[in-house]
Amino acid sequence: MPRTTSLELRVRYAETDKMGVVYHSHYLIWCELGRTDYIRAGGMSYRQMEEAGVMLAVAEANVRYRAPARYDDLIRVETTLTDVSSRAVTFDYVVSNAETGERLATASTLLVALDQSHRVVKLPSQIRARLEASAGAP
Amino acid sequence: MPRTTSLELRVRYAETDKMGVVYHSHYLIWCELGRTDYIRAGGMSYRQMEEAGVMLAVAEANVRYRAPARYDDLIRVETTLTDVSSRAVTFDYVVSNAETGERLATASTLLVALDQSHRVVKLPSQIRARLEASAGAP
Amino acid sequence: MPRTTSLELRVRYAETDKMGVVYHSHYLIWCELGRTDYIRAGGMSYRQMEEAGVMLAVAEANVRYRAPARYDDLIRVETTLTDVSSRAVTFDYVVSNAETGERLATASTLLVALDQSHRVVKLPSQIRARLEASAGAP
Amino acid sequence: MPRTTSLELRVRYAETDKMGVVYHSHYLIWCELGRTDYIRAGGMSYRQMEEAGVMLAVAEANVRYRAPARYDDLIRVETTLTDVSSRAVTFDYVVSNAETGERLATASTLLVALDQSHRVVKLPSQIRARLEASAGAP
Repeated sequence: MPRTTSLELRVRYAETDKMGVVYHSHYLIWCELGRTDYIRAGGMSYRQMEEAGVMLAVAEANVRYRAPARYDDLIRVETTLTDVSSRAVTFDYVVSNAETGERLATASTLLVALDQSHRVVKLPSQIRARLEASAGAP
Repeated sequence: MPRTTSLELRVRYAETDKMGVVYHSHYLIWCELGRTDYIRAGGMSYRQMEEAGVMLAVAEANVRYRAPARYDDLIRVETTLTDVSSRAVTFDYVVSNAETGERLATASTLLVALDQSHRVVKLPSQIRARLEASAGAP
Repeated sequence: MPRTTSLELRVRYAETDKMGVVYHSHYLIWCELGRTDYIRAGGMSYRQMEEAGVMLAVAEANVRYRAPARYDDLIRVETTLTDVSSRAVTFDYVVSNAETGERLATASTLLVALDQSHRVVKLPSQIRARLEASAGAP
Repeated sequence: MPRTTSLELRVRYAETDKMGVVYHSHYLIWCELGRTDYIRAGGMSYRQMEEAGVMLAVAEANVRYRAPARYDDLIRVETTLTDVSSRAVTFDYVVSNAETGERLATASTLLVALDQSHRVVKLPSQIRARLEASAGAP
């Protein structure tokens, strides 16, 4: 299972703003695409996790913007799972221009496990084991 | 109960695109704000309708764009309920610049009633009566 | 040059709403992705068109929603250029579930050519010729 | 000039996701609405700042999510300008449910001043003075 996954996407016109660059909130959506891709690469999609009754809700998000992304740019999102605890996971992201290699943003999100009533719960042991394996945890 | 309701909103930066104007898909969101406001003015919010088990799903949407909306413009959405049948309703919208009066777009949406399993159902008679009253139907 | 292009995309979590399905305005964004892909297949990207000073602004959009799209579904957007005139073009779209083949929506958009001052202009003859060729016009 | 401004908004259906709550990226848009409102209260709108050739680009954003916002909730965004330097400003935000008072999220954004070529520049002295005055800086 990979320790870092890499996803490519192309900037949509709807993601730009009147400054001519991508509006900053969209990077959080790209991070989610990276995270979804990371989890899928571990053998169980996030959709399947939700169908099994476990949701991961974003509890904290931090983004540093370094250079703008523009319409039709090919973007790379590299995702790493950096921490797994009993009730939470942390993902780090590097967003870059896939053609030039220029680093555009770095981000980190903390997610907590919720049950279907939106209560914080422990990650089911099977899911936790999968995530720890992908993170290279002991 | 009013036959046409009027809602004002201010254009968000996130709604603009690199052309410097509002991206076209956002008008559908503004129409929904107009529709929600119309339904609320009838005495039962759309949120309450959903809590009562009835959802209105957009089955058809048509928009004509006449002039662009720009960042920070004050926008007016005028909403009229033009048709109520046993399982569907039609709303018409006029979107204009609230300060200049310039007409920016006109739109129409057909919505069908769904139950919580997403099956098309008849509108409950009480809700239908409220909507017909607001539409001025006989 | 193809007369119909086919693009696949995966539904993003951010595109769903509390009804559990894709919010209706996002289909217009998917249509734009289809349109962009169609134009790119003709040998000149829409980004290049804009850099050459020609923008295509949506003047009319019509969507019929037939069945819902859900989170993580693989979606296919088939795009056809159905009309080219001196100042406008019309694209038709079929949106379906790429795995089941189920038709989810059909749509049509009319776009007008604008110059950098946002005035309606004639399509430059070279661009019009490319588009007509792809549309199979005489 | 106020040191903290307070803005109210109502949660849009399009802002919810399939978890039944507001998707996390939308809070950054609400923060921008708070920031815009804060700047307007200082006597010069952000639109006017951009027309004068100065843009504020988000360089860093941090959000902590404490409780979910739901469709049709009335939301309050309280905005404070906490730091002004020669080329950057920092805003802090508290997002709460306006009816219950429950705190939903806190956030902070660092913005840098850009000229029309998107180069980092010093804030014009008049704008800096206005912002410092509103922040209560000496």
